Amino acid sequence: MTHTVGTSPQKDYRAALIVIGNEILSGRTQDKNVNWLALKLLERGISLAEVRVIPDIEDRIIRTVRDIQFEVDYVFTTGGIGPTHDDITAESIAKAFDTELELNADAKLMLENHYGPDNLTPARMKMAMIPKGAELIPNPVSGAPGFIIQGVYVMAGVPKIMQAMLDHVLPGLKGGSLILSRTVSCHLSESKIAEALADVQKKWPNVEIGSYPQFKEGSFAVNIVLRCVDAVMLEAATQDVIAITSL
Amino acid sequence: MTHTVGTSPQKDYRAALIVIGNEILSGRTQDKNVNWLALKLLERGISLAEVRVIPDIEDRIIRTVRDIQFEVDYVFTTGGIGPTHDDITAESIAKAFDTELELNADAKLMLENHYGPDNLTPARMKMAMIPKGAELIPNPVSGAPGFIIQGVYVMAGVPKIMQAMLDHVLPGLKGGSLILSRTVSCHLSESKIAEALADVQKKWPNVEIGSYPQFKEGSFAVNIVLRCVDAVMLEAATQDVIAITSL
Repeated sequence: MTHTVGTSPQKDYRAALIVIGNEILSGRTQDKNVNWLALKLLERGISLAEVRVIPDIEDRIIRTVRDIQFEVDYVFTTGGIGPTHDDITAESIAKAFDTELELNADAKLMLENHYGPDNLTPARMKMAMIPKGAELIPNPVSGAPGFIIQGVYVMAGVPKIMQAMLDHVLPGLKGGSLILSRTVSCHLSESKIAEALADVQKKWPNVEIGSYPQFKEGSFAVNIVLRCVDAVMLEAATQDVIAITSL
Repeated sequence: MTHTVGTSPQKDYRAALIVIGNEILSGRTQDKNVNWLALKLLERGISLAEVRVIPDIEDRIIRTVRDIQFEVDYVFTTGGIGPTHDDITAESIAKAFDTELELNADAKLMLENHYGPDNLTPARMKMAMIPKGAELIPNPVSGAPGFIIQGVYVMAGVPKIMQAMLDHVLPGLKGGSLILSRTVSCHLSESKIAEALADVQKKWPNVEIGSYPQFKEGSFAVNIVLRCVDAVMLEAATQDVIAITSL
């Protein structure tokens, strides 16, 4: 990425999300975590570079984490950290890093505080088994913590819990420049503005310009989204887009 | 996968979806295609094995297609086949298969029929550029076709168009046994039933049993989802689950 005079070159921070969830792949559940995470990361100057939705299968989890971890600065996972037999994320992540689960004293304390010290059944104790060396992510909603290991943030799949865990870790994440965005909407068909829009993109190579058609009240509309870390450049490019959509 | 006496072993058909879309990764748009595709494929006995959401970047599209194509029976892509500068899916897919785009006469005809023969601007003609050897997928909504090349089904990202294209290709897809499913809902916490549920899973190894906690009116509820190609086995396992959730 090139930068204009006046903007100092800065690292782009990138994240990936691994959604561990048979329920998403079977169509039973509509995922809501991708969108939430994407927006929250953007606010910290981190862009979501890839999402993978994979089933609750140990080998797939291990392979995906290993595949993706060196491509981005942060890896997030959602799902599979509960007490039931199909919750295999913690164990799979431990194996991905060639380590193992251990009874984490702090996690046990968190569960005791949530369930009461006399109610720690074996199923609940399972949620205190955390990969060695991992740092816990508290869960104010239902007790059982997530954890962080080697840049991988392991969170719950239930949106309310995932959101609380994310709120906890976000302040600790280093990000780059905030990516600003503007949207220009018009009722023209995409193909009418395509050539002029390509010229605007060429004129402003540091502004990412996306064109997104959609159905609105039975006819086509287009949202043209401009994204850039530089407010002045963004505004200038936006004016150019407004000009071509007003012809 | 093992099978009981009486059920003939049958191939499992698996698909992957590549969502090509900066707008999903930036959090601007909530994806609706994953869920739709998952459910439609299931009806044909095809399970969605993985989803990847990637940006509109040529190298990422090429790498992802090559990565995933031998892992599954069908690969679907959504997004990036419109007329604007950021629509690079067709060209990237052509490169992934070491071929190139050519003006497809049938695609041109489809566009003529939609826009009128005198309205084929260069931007619209771009949508008639299809990888050599690909088969077209008609687009009854907005004219510009998708295409099929070597088991990769390239579709539009706008849900209404994607759905129409999928309707067109679904009857031609070979699938396996229909996967039947039952859901048992209860207001117990997951950790209360975890051990008994693990026993039910052990008893019925051919039934996939998933436990999905959720918030419902401020308290936790669990949906236990059972999936199996064999109706008798599914019913028996469901009765076992009902028994443990009614204790």
